[in-house]
Amino acid sequence: MAKKPKLLSDLFHDTLKDVYFAEKKILTSLPKMAKAAQSKDLKAAFVKHERETRGQVKRLEHVFKIFGKKAQAKKCEAIMGITKEGQEIMIEFKGMPALDAGLAAAAQAVEHYEMSRYGTLKTWATELGMPEAAALLDATLKEEKATDLALTALAKSVLNIEAEADL
Amino acid sequence: MAKKPKLLSDLFHDTLKDVYFAEKKILTSLPKMAKAAQSKDLKAAFVKHERETRGQVKRLEHVFKIFGKKAQAKKCEAIMGITKEGQEIMIEFKGMPALDAGLAAAAQAVEHYEMSRYGTLKTWATELGMPEAAALLDATLKEEKATDLALTALAKSVLNIEAEADL
Repeated sequence: MAKKPKLLSDLFHDTLKDVYFAEKKILTSLPKMAKAAQSKDLKAAFVKHERETRGQVKRLEHVFKIFGKKAQAKKCEAIMGITKEGQEIMIEFKGMPALDAGLAAAAQAVEHYEMSRYGTLKTWATELGMPEAAALLDATLKEEKATDLALTALAKSVLNIEAEADL
Repeated sequence: MAKKPKLLSDLFHDTLKDVYFAEKKILTSLPKMAKAAQSKDLKAAFVKHERETRGQVKRLEHVFKIFGKKAQAKKCEAIMGITKEGQEIMIEFKGMPALDAGLAAAAQAVEHYEMSRYGTLKTWATELGMPEAAALLDATLKEEKATDLALTALAKSVLNIEAEADL
């Protein structure tokens, strides 16, 4: 039997499972980051993003449904690596002045990974003739971009706090 | 003896070593991606980015020098995970119609990770009073953004090629 050619729909399915895993992993990591953060604003940003991430998981489940497949997670090595770096920051910089700057940077690395994945999935959903799925993926993409912008501002504000602490 | 507080300079140093490792890892992965790509344009984009990456490694070595430290790599779990996903695509989609779409997406995930890291390092270099280092990091950041934009266009064009092959 000839091997079935792997098409864009296979790639879309694989990547959807990968991002579904990533969002669930992020959901376990955000409360730890919120607990570790020293700045009240950074803590609040992580709590807010945890709430948003729950909505993003629901959206992915909706996309699986449109695609006609069961929502299923597939281990995503990228998010494992990215979140591991965040965990290292939490351990190595625990109680240290630079902790929050490191946490904000780690969260931005997560956001950027997601932005790349949702951008790709949105393009593929459109190509595969699923405009409703593309719209759902785009809604999440916009949220991730907004979170990244908010983190950029927070990353700068926590630096100011550290600088004051150093005086 | 009291534990020395970890400051932004420590975080900067750690992240610099992490990105130095990441760029070197990317240098080993790009020729494989160029070899695997089916589209001539995507192949050429990977070859071009390999050349750029060599320049980015040199810039990082310059930043280490400005910072007064020896250029040194520290294993970056994030890039290990992200590039592992690219390798999986190369194996699972070898010779398949969707290979190039998967390769372009994998490369964009790498670019996004780098964009987040260079953005962070640039902010920290400025905060640490190293404008020359910040300018070098910004030059690379701009290159990564341009590469990501070029990949976005290529990712769409390889979809069109696949669609034609499906007819």
